[in-house]
Amino acid sequence: MKGAEAVVRTLADCGVTTCFANPGTSEMHFVAALDTVPELHGVLCLFEGVATGAADGYGRMTGRPAAALLHLGPGLGNGLANLHNARRARTPVLAIVGDHATYHSRYDAPLESDIDALARSVSGWVRRSARSADAGADAAAAVAAALTPPGQVATLILPADVTWTDDGVTAAPVTARPAAPVPAIVVEEAYGAVCGAGSTGRSGETAVILLGGAGLTRPALEAASRIASATGARMMAETFPARMERGAGVPSVPRLAYLVEQAAAQLAGTLHLILAGARAPVSFFAYPGKPSTPVPDGCQVHVLAEPGDDVPGALTALADLAAPATAPVPQQAARPEIPDGELTAESAAAAIGALLPEGAIVCDEANTSGLWLPGATAGAPSHDWLSLTGGAIGQGLPVAAGAAIACPGRPVLALEADGSAMYTVSALWTYAREELDVTTVIFSNRSYAVLSMELERTGAAAGPTARSLLDLSRPDIDFTAFATGMGVPASRALTAGEFAGQLQRALAEPGPHLIELALGGRR
Amino acid sequence: MKGAEAVVRTLADCGVTTCFANPGTSEMHFVAALDTVPELHGVLCLFEGVATGAADGYGRMTGRPAAALLHLGPGLGNGLANLHNARRARTPVLAIVGDHATYHSRYDAPLESDIDALARSVSGWVRRSARSADAGADAAAAVAAALTPPGQVATLILPADVTWTDDGVTAAPVTARPAAPVPAIVVEEAYGAVCGAGSTGRSGETAVILLGGAGLTRPALEAASRIASATGARMMAETFPARMERGAGVPSVPRLAYLVEQAAAQLAGTLHLILAGARAPVSFFAYPGKPSTPVPDGCQVHVLAEPGDDVPGALTALADLAAPATAPVPQQAARPEIPDGELTAESAAAAIGALLPEGAIVCDEANTSGLWLPGATAGAPSHDWLSLTGGAIGQGLPVAAGAAIACPGRPVLALEADGSAMYTVSALWTYAREELDVTTVIFSNRSYAVLSMELERTGAAAGPTARSLLDLSRPDIDFTAFATGMGVPASRALTAGEFAGQLQRALAEPGPHLIELALGGRR
Repeated sequence: MKGAEAVVRTLADCGVTTCFANPGTSEMHFVAALDTVPELHGVLCLFEGVATGAADGYGRMTGRPAAALLHLGPGLGNGLANLHNARRARTPVLAIVGDHATYHSRYDAPLESDIDALARSVSGWVRRSARSADAGADAAAAVAAALTPPGQVATLILPADVTWTDDGVTAAPVTARPAAPVPAIVVEEAYGAVCGAGSTGRSGETAVILLGGAGLTRPALEAASRIASATGARMMAETFPARMERGAGVPSVPRLAYLVEQAAAQLAGTLHLILAGARAPVSFFAYPGKPSTPVPDGCQVHVLAEPGDDVPGALTALADLAAPATAPVPQQAARPEIPDGELTAESAAAAIGALLPEGAIVCDEANTSGLWLPGATAGAPSHDWLSLTGGAIGQGLPVAAGAAIACPGRPVLALEADGSAMYTVSALWTYAREELDVTTVIFSNRSYAVLSMELERTGAAAGPTARSLLDLSRPDIDFTAFATGMGVPASRALTAGEFAGQLQRALAEPGPHLIELALGGRR
Repeated sequence: MKGAEAVVRTLADCGVTTCFANPGTSEMHFVAALDTVPELHGVLCLFEGVATGAADGYGRMTGRPAAALLHLGPGLGNGLANLHNARRARTPVLAIVGDHATYHSRYDAPLESDIDALARSVSGWVRRSARSADAGADAAAAVAAALTPPGQVATLILPADVTWTDDGVTAAPVTARPAAPVPAIVVEEAYGAVCGAGSTGRSGETAVILLGGAGLTRPALEAASRIASATGARMMAETFPARMERGAGVPSVPRLAYLVEQAAAQLAGTLHLILAGARAPVSFFAYPGKPSTPVPDGCQVHVLAEPGDDVPGALTALADLAAPATAPVPQQAARPEIPDGELTAESAAAAIGALLPEGAIVCDEANTSGLWLPGATAGAPSHDWLSLTGGAIGQGLPVAAGAAIACPGRPVLALEADGSAMYTVSALWTYAREELDVTTVIFSNRSYAVLSMELERTGAAAGPTARSLLDLSRPDIDFTAFATGMGVPASRALTAGEFAGQLQRALAEPGPHLIELALGGRR
């Protein structure tokens, strides 16, 4: 069998069932092999950033890697920003990059480029398959690498002749290595921090448990909630979780703020910061005269569980020590009223909170317009919240495609800022082709609003030229035209009531829909 | 003055007048500095690939670098594919990448990534500015590097604190280093090859002069035409020229074919291949059983002029030796009739040939649909032809934006394949904002047609799954909706006559227009 078929069969045997593809000539044998291995479903994306972002969304929801099939260095380049986000999300993702035939590289053909260097910048594992006989084993090793807890980007570079040569052999399937258990001594140290080391005796009120990664799944949140109830320690979530379970019935946890001074205020007085699947917090950007981290001076940082450890297990062990008789405190069901009147980011959030269906997957790239979303949706039926992990905008629409393919029975809501949507808008086409149940809401404020804020925070003096470079009007962008131009039914909402009605209908109908929110009272 | 202002003033003093920008927080001081230096015009692009492709188009038309302002590693990643194309085009381009403040890097904030590694993959020159006092000098060095003949991508990485610290100083402007003259002995060797070394005595019929880079400007083409007329040597152009002058009054030169077997047929019998600004030709891809180069066995390759040499000067010197009394043979004016009837790639090419205005700049990413364009436009009024140099699709629309800004008086025609257009379609928004006189023609055949051909050529067995991954229907894409959604007037042509009428109107009106060609008789 050809090397390509050995790769594709091995991937399928390893449980890889989806390949988000934007192929070129060097990937043609891989593409052809998909016909012989129907277990691996090929999903066409019209831009590589859609393919890599979709693989991220798929991996966040399943814990298993999808493949993203990319065309040489430029294809990988187009996919890099969302692989960067996947790296920050610690998502298992398998990037497969076709290359020229091994013997052709020395000719420096037009598409020749340093694939390996690009791959290393976002991948925890990179391998270049050297011969067809090894390609199956390389594919299995790539899946194993992607599944290394907590998950990472693994990149397999496949030269064209490796895929078309006939001595391919499949490799035995790999299984995921379990997350490492946390030693009892580490749990006991954290126990001391939450229960014995506060300035007020046995109170945990000067301790904060910072949750990230698998620390934001329901079992982990329930354990953390028990600890908080019993000790007075506060639980908080990292600023941009890859995936967070929340809503009615799930213990609620506030997120650390994006702005470093707000995060510092949240952490003020903390003497013990206990990390459970999260990294020590840092400022997203540096600003003149502002600190690079919100952690207070003198605060002791304890690592209860690294992201690759068994985070829920460690939290449960800590809860059993610190709160043996305490039950978790679930979030009560509560929804805002369906709003009417002016359409603002706040009333839009209320409409979403009022209507969010049970089991929804929310892909949040609403950025500044999303400020009211956490509050408005806190008591909605239980759902998953996926956020922009690496700061590279253009993630939300692709991630929603991957989440929808990963979880065919669940409604997906993509909440998108207008500026961010423009980076990977062709994801809508994939929604339509695959008939994905994704409802896209575009928060159209016609500006890079986050940058208007950041401009001031960096102390830069903004004149009219600078302002014009943050302005998305002149011309206004009509996202309903984009959507209908790619086969996605679309509407525009001018009032909160219109939005609520449109959202209700979109959620009731299967398949993709897009609603553009004309924020600021525009027509 | 702040480091950012020192950079921006120095760039303006060095003749950099345009900055294609997709900025983020770390670039805010650079953006603010644009208000104090109005000589540097900021052009907002909604995706980094548009900014880098526009800088490529600008540089091809002016020989001077425009800046592309990008946001950390992910922004550079999104711009890499078109920087790859610019590298292959040997265009002077200045990539300016903002980074975190120097002291903030150690915190590994979410957007931290290996900018330097990404930059090196596409740049001939990379520098990371270390302190504000040096930033002006670094900017001047970057311009000088970009202008190194024949031109290259120079990347300047600007940490945020370098831009906001107050001890910036401007640097003296740099001027372009002239291309190196070619020594007489090299010209004489080429003279021997075209005039003295053929198998039929003094005939040059077994010699081919392969022109690339500056070898495709009018003076170079006129010199090559004289040589060809006097000696019987054939002149040919590289397959994908960055910029080629052609049309009535300019000597006409056929391009080497894309497919290696066709190129090999064009070069069959060649004993001397004389390179003038071009590289020795190679196959774009490798295929089982096909050669990696079309150069015949036993053919001697002579380098008359490297791309960075004075290529027109070398050709003129050779012409003065080989053809002292011979005049160049200009292309005669000749246009196809305005077509009517069925709309095909061939009749569309005829309409373009019939209507192409004098001085037009054609940005050609029509790919397989463009097969008839060179023939149909050969005798049109003189124009420039810009092609896809590096094989990374998504180049044409951005390059057209840059060309239009570089040459405000000239009409620009962007000829785009539908698949390629989807990578950087937001370029249309920049056309509208800047009111650019770009007429975009989308050759909508609803497939990655080049891959259908390549699938067969690679010997891959295509089943229905493979075919579906090359198919751009289900859903059909409506490019007129995209265009009007971004403020660009648009129409759809169903017949050749409709297209001709729409093209005539679009060319007559200032500002951007888009025409979607419904190829294959679709409605």
